[in-house]
Amino acid sequence: MTQWLRFSHDNSVGIGTLDSGLIKIFSGDLFGAPKETGETCKLADVDVLTPCDPTKIVALWNNNLALADKMGLSKPEHPLYLLKGPNTFLAAGQSIQQPPSYDGRVVYEAELGVVIGKACSNVTEQVATDYIFGYTCFNDVTALSLLDTDPTFPQWVRAKGFDTFGVFGPVIDTQVDPSELTIRAELNGRERQNYPVSDLFYSPRELVSHISKNMTLMPGDIIACGTGPGALPMKSGMTIDIIIDPIGRLSNPFE
Amino acid sequence: MTQWLRFSHDNSVGIGTLDSGLIKIFSGDLFGAPKETGETCKLADVDVLTPCDPTKIVALWNNNLALADKMGLSKPEHPLYLLKGPNTFLAAGQSIQQPPSYDGRVVYEAELGVVIGKACSNVTEQVATDYIFGYTCFNDVTALSLLDTDPTFPQWVRAKGFDTFGVFGPVIDTQVDPSELTIRAELNGRERQNYPVSDLFYSPRELVSHISKNMTLMPGDIIACGTGPGALPMKSGMTIDIIIDPIGRLSNPFE
Repeated sequence: MTQWLRFSHDNSVGIGTLDSGLIKIFSGDLFGAPKETGETCKLADVDVLTPCDPTKIVALWNNNLALADKMGLSKPEHPLYLLKGPNTFLAAGQSIQQPPSYDGRVVYEAELGVVIGKACSNVTEQVATDYIFGYTCFNDVTALSLLDTDPTFPQWVRAKGFDTFGVFGPVIDTQVDPSELTIRAELNGRERQNYPVSDLFYSPRELVSHISKNMTLMPGDIIACGTGPGALPMKSGMTIDIIIDPIGRLSNPFE
Repeated sequence: MTQWLRFSHDNSVGIGTLDSGLIKIFSGDLFGAPKETGETCKLADVDVLTPCDPTKIVALWNNNLALADKMGLSKPEHPLYLLKGPNTFLAAGQSIQQPPSYDGRVVYEAELGVVIGKACSNVTEQVATDYIFGYTCFNDVTALSLLDTDPTFPQWVRAKGFDTFGVFGPVIDTQVDPSELTIRAELNGRERQNYPVSDLFYSPRELVSHISKNMTLMPGDIIACGTGPGALPMKSGMTIDIIIDPIGRLSNPFE
């Protein structure tokens, strides 16, 4: 198992692999050929950052069989998605914030995040896996009440684009087999979402292939695979955890 | 008149102000306090880049009175928008490309681009102008036939998100009064769009205020104000020019 994380320590940013609370520090670019420095530090002594810094996050809608059934939808002919901007990026442990300009419902959405490792454009499903660096936990936070306030234009980008609404980490697992994963959400410790990756209409490699035909994906870009049933509003003071074993647990308070 | 541009010359990237074909070269950050170096070079000797490198581009829909009238729409209660990713960015003179995976119509859309100068969040209309660095020409290229291929989800991000579909430049004008501008498009030299900024439902400063309440805007971010009537499909070999006097002319071939 190899799990990469990015961290801040003594006013500098580092990358490394995490094992049992100990970080082996590497130098260089995570998506280049990072070199082991021989130094280590304890996870408890650093601030965990988002494990990478995407140029874009592509977030899927209607990519889950069980949720589609509930909503009277079926598998779309092409993956359906929007973009989440860099202002949304939030690391494990940091606070998801209710926007000052919005007092409606804010829901969590537990999702698998696919992290791209190499620039890719127009790749086939057969080779798509070669362009995937690894997998991370993703919380696609959404200001649900805004979505349909305009009858002529569903406001996906607005509703999902507030600061702190794109939560991912704490690590990128580079060796896990995505097809066997289960994605879970716990709100204040109580399980609210639990669905298998096998319920996704489009698998990670299918998503990479399809989306790479629409846009060049860059190292560090993330595809958030879309959520399953059980997304609920959060109240101030609650903690939301996205758990994907063996990747890890992405835990954030909501304020 | 101050017009900033970014360029590549002798394998390095520079910034400077442009006047009558001559570039006065500056050092430092365009949005910090760049310093005049005393050096100059000719515009003809450099490769023009996009004048900045946005963390996000916010592109408006239904923000023009004349176009809304044609489409049976009215002023929306809030600006309606999507995001265009960094893979779309294209400089003046470079080729807009028909995507290999799509053989439908590709249309130009002439728009005013508002360039943010300082990080801003939750700003009022009264002070919004303080956060605007300047204005540029924007071509919001769109794969029109994709927009409504799924009845459950208008694919704005996909249709406007292909590589080379976010064209802007060649300069950022920091002294122009936006309220008096006219935005024009010429396809192969024939005028096809011509509308005044006064036809926009939401003015630049209103857009900055509204959008800053949804997301923190960063230096270099661009708000593309939405187009007016007259957007048409391009055919291979054509040249599309977006002209906003006195900002300049953004000219690109389509392949």
